[in-house]
Amino acid sequence: MRIALLGGTGDIGQGLALRWAHDTNHEVLIGSRDPEKARQKADEYETELDSVGVERTVKGFANEMAADRADVVVLAVPAYHIRDTVEAVADRIEDADALVTPAVGMDRDDEGFHYKPPKVGSVTELVAETAPKGVPVVGAFHNLAADRLANLDVELDLDTILVGDDEDAVETVSMLAEQIEGLRALKAGGVANAAEIEGLTPLLINLAMENEGMHDVGVKFF
Amino acid sequence: MRIALLGGTGDIGQGLALRWAHDTNHEVLIGSRDPEKARQKADEYETELDSVGVERTVKGFANEMAADRADVVVLAVPAYHIRDTVEAVADRIEDADALVTPAVGMDRDDEGFHYKPPKVGSVTELVAETAPKGVPVVGAFHNLAADRLANLDVELDLDTILVGDDEDAVETVSMLAEQIEGLRALKAGGVANAAEIEGLTPLLINLAMENEGMHDVGVKFF
Repeated sequence: MRIALLGGTGDIGQGLALRWAHDTNHEVLIGSRDPEKARQKADEYETELDSVGVERTVKGFANEMAADRADVVVLAVPAYHIRDTVEAVADRIEDADALVTPAVGMDRDDEGFHYKPPKVGSVTELVAETAPKGVPVVGAFHNLAADRLANLDVELDLDTILVGDDEDAVETVSMLAEQIEGLRALKAGGVANAAEIEGLTPLLINLAMENEGMHDVGVKFF
Repeated sequence: MRIALLGGTGDIGQGLALRWAHDTNHEVLIGSRDPEKARQKADEYETELDSVGVERTVKGFANEMAADRADVVVLAVPAYHIRDTVEAVADRIEDADALVTPAVGMDRDDEGFHYKPPKVGSVTELVAETAPKGVPVVGAFHNLAADRLANLDVELDLDTILVGDDEDAVETVSMLAEQIEGLRALKAGGVANAAEIEGLTPLLINLAMENEGMHDVGVKFF
């Protein structure tokens, strides 16, 4: 399978790229608005994988090109770039098996981090609203600390929660998630249930700030 | 220490009452709007504790009486009764070490459960706004499945997250939480950060509904 990580030069994109390249045989494409930056980051990921004994080809492209070639497209961009990014690749993702959104809208004040969803209710619902009709949207990978994900020396031992209205797409992303070692995929229903998942991310940051030894904290459900 | 569980005849109240009576020497007072119902439930809890070999006295009172006698007062009532309950006991809790709120505002539609906080931002902030000035409010115990909490045969092995603006009160409730076997207390800052914790409760219910074997699911942070 081919996975495109749009904004794959950023921290969550880096983590997903390294893990999928390390743990699976899926082809990983790095997308960026700047194709040169994408190629440079892809080279860095190859070097890092090589350093842990994994010889993989990771290629960089402009977001549109990466999206065009992929079966699964991950919007690894900040929440405030989501709409622009989806619009930029709209005519390239019509045949995608899944459009995946891990972004969360947050703000910060003196007390800590707070969940600030877009008006439509959640970033996941914003993606569903913005994407071309028929492209199945899946919310996933919201609650993974980027540094921990990108550190191949660390075993994850974490859960990620998926929402989506298209069962096949949710199954596909669930499979991709569980092919990452130490990651378990749980389901939480349709995109209408995304806000409660996205809202967990600022909570994790608050926990990391307020408790000793919880830098890069993640979550498991029992 | 004396702990009053207002609405202690309900499911989360039952769980906290049984666990504290079972695992600690704190005095546990059951409150209800109907003192007869409180006494009846308190007797049931005594019987249940006796059945697992723990001989404890659990007493039932009208909410006002229970609150009046307690060092720590827990508002184990549904979100829509929070304001009434706080107002009813306002002149009895002025010396309390902590006023604890585990309630969450939720609604349900065809898709699942959704977080519906009061206008002030969270139930915890509503309690802080309604309580007499100077009474330290702590949000805690939001994310514990009531059945699991009330089943003394089950080891909890879960986290609970606390928010509060008064450090001493947070410390007191943190201690009470950790005296329950298998429960770890984490901190997430002030009451302004409560919404993200309360929002976790509908997510847990959605996970319980959408995943096999996750009835009574709880959460741990690593």
